[in-house]
Amino acid sequence: MSGLRRFNELRPPERILMGPGPSNINYRVYKAMSTPILGHLDPDFMSVMDEICEMLRLVFKTRNRLTIPISGTGSSGMETAFVNLIEPEDKVIIGVNGLFGERMVDVALRCGARVFRIDEEWGKIIDPGRVVDTLVKHPDTKIFAIVHAETSTGAKQPLEEIGAFLRDKDTLFVVDAVTSLGGCELKVDEWGIDVCYSGTQKCLSVPPGLSPITLSEKALYILHSKRSRVQSWYLDLTLIERYWGEERFYHHTAPVSMLFALHEGLRIVLEEGMERRIERHQTVGDYLKTRLQELGWELFAQEGYRLPMLTSVVLPNGVDDAKLRTRLLRDYGIEIGGGLGKTKGRIWRIGLMGETCKRQNVELFLLALKELIG
Amino acid sequence: MSGLRRFNELRPPERILMGPGPSNINYRVYKAMSTPILGHLDPDFMSVMDEICEMLRLVFKTRNRLTIPISGTGSSGMETAFVNLIEPEDKVIIGVNGLFGERMVDVALRCGARVFRIDEEWGKIIDPGRVVDTLVKHPDTKIFAIVHAETSTGAKQPLEEIGAFLRDKDTLFVVDAVTSLGGCELKVDEWGIDVCYSGTQKCLSVPPGLSPITLSEKALYILHSKRSRVQSWYLDLTLIERYWGEERFYHHTAPVSMLFALHEGLRIVLEEGMERRIERHQTVGDYLKTRLQELGWELFAQEGYRLPMLTSVVLPNGVDDAKLRTRLLRDYGIEIGGGLGKTKGRIWRIGLMGETCKRQNVELFLLALKELIG
Repeated sequence: MSGLRRFNELRPPERILMGPGPSNINYRVYKAMSTPILGHLDPDFMSVMDEICEMLRLVFKTRNRLTIPISGTGSSGMETAFVNLIEPEDKVIIGVNGLFGERMVDVALRCGARVFRIDEEWGKIIDPGRVVDTLVKHPDTKIFAIVHAETSTGAKQPLEEIGAFLRDKDTLFVVDAVTSLGGCELKVDEWGIDVCYSGTQKCLSVPPGLSPITLSEKALYILHSKRSRVQSWYLDLTLIERYWGEERFYHHTAPVSMLFALHEGLRIVLEEGMERRIERHQTVGDYLKTRLQELGWELFAQEGYRLPMLTSVVLPNGVDDAKLRTRLLRDYGIEIGGGLGKTKGRIWRIGLMGETCKRQNVELFLLALKELIG
Repeated sequence: MSGLRRFNELRPPERILMGPGPSNINYRVYKAMSTPILGHLDPDFMSVMDEICEMLRLVFKTRNRLTIPISGTGSSGMETAFVNLIEPEDKVIIGVNGLFGERMVDVALRCGARVFRIDEEWGKIIDPGRVVDTLVKHPDTKIFAIVHAETSTGAKQPLEEIGAFLRDKDTLFVVDAVTSLGGCELKVDEWGIDVCYSGTQKCLSVPPGLSPITLSEKALYILHSKRSRVQSWYLDLTLIERYWGEERFYHHTAPVSMLFALHEGLRIVLEEGMERRIERHQTVGDYLKTRLQELGWELFAQEGYRLPMLTSVVLPNGVDDAKLRTRLLRDYGIEIGGGLGKTKGRIWRIGLMGETCKRQNVELFLLALKELIG
């Protein structure tokens, strides 16, 4: 068989993953992921599932019953949020100040929503007062959705004021926390968030492939009182909740190894403790920002609203984006991210997420930068 | 933090996975899966992606350009097939002789299709002549879909006659090969299949979480000439093909570790060789069936059309399904599957897929059976 000859064993180079995700993985997570699998209906697997849900609640800071990982990457979590709650012609308002806000608009439109945008310049936050004013004028809004950590720009969106306003309204508050969960403060219950989804490959430092999501009782009520069927079978929470709940009703075969990995990743997060973990991200992220500014680099995201785990910097004139990133990768094993969409070729995005978030990585990156562009 | 105290390291018991999937995993796959990850846009990862596609083409026996793993379990492959090809009011005919045929109906309805069913008793195949007759009467059918290996019943559906008929028609031939791929003959190009999807956790013996799919040029033409937008963003092949193709346009963060696992799993499949692998599944599956019949068990699926990798048997009167399966699991570490839907409590489904498919597992199972029910 030609197979033997042509396809060699994987021997990828080692990388320091300082891009916008995935981040580096702790060896314990790899070990857990390689644990011989159980069947997806094995009673011993059920207890693993239950523990994952319990740990996710601690990380999301929520008591929400339906707090589970979706069997897909972060974007599947976004789609799960919209597809389960939107009915055709529903009014959805979305804050858009980056690529992932744009993606939300795209997904909501595919669900048949009437989408209204609150646009802001990329890199800036969306003024919460402006959001509240808009929502006051549109009390018939089914969903207001916004990105907490805009991975495309490095801006951190304040959520409390919006959540407080929406708490006693009919409008659901949907938050994309793909990049923020586990790396900065996020309090689902206290902030009045109804639906919050994330990804495993950012500050949780678990390989990409799962999307933790949590829904409030208000969101569950809307889910269960929908007239139309959820347009996705795979992401239909009315079916998925029966598998993750007491009934254990078979829906799809759970991605067992990925869930083992998530179990260990969450254990590591809780061992460190959320507060200490958040502080570490802040400290190391601040250090990178300070050093870059000392070196004359300009930060891209709005001052006062910069993400700890993802630093965006404006590329100086004359710096060849692609060429330099290639050299960082090839010669130093360091992956960083370029701009996306509107900022392509204009900014870099340097991630310090989860396992990657330590000073030695910052120092190595700065050294490489010095050697490459002086 | 209470986390430290309450959540222990995973130490799941060892299992012989003789259910309807997942199957056991080769240690080489676990090792590959634990290989430190690369970023999803790393040039070294691109070559891994390319090799996966090449190997999948060999396994599917196709030259289809778009032959890729979808970032979800087998059911996400089913949804990908329908959601990308169906427009509202399209006529879709589906063969239904088990749970996964029913699931296809459900998914197609959610895409807005007008669904017509060709029903058959569970455990029986759907007569290909009857399918062709129906398709002759309905030349305006957009899609005819059927399950190759009905995991809920153990029946193997003949496909050649249907494929030959549809080859020069406008109707697309969609085949669910979740359980068959890598375990019995399946020739996508030769049989005229337009869309074929599978899962990794059956005869490929890779953990659950990916769904290989392949689309013919005819299917791609329909995909690209669709008037309406694909209703799922996450499964939108017009976007996904730009990431897996030369453009490498970012869509979602690929599940890197699962793809490493698939790469090694496919290497193992090709090292054994498809023919030898198929023969092994046939031989070991036949052996189980013969021995069960000698012991007086009645096979459930239609004679002449029984799956090699999944044997369905009728439970004798007086056998307590749940209790016995629990004892098999607890006392012998053997997982087998019960019935699903209509056959719940009436049949067992015994899988011999991929790594699990070896005589020693059959012997152990028979021994356990003897000790438990004499």
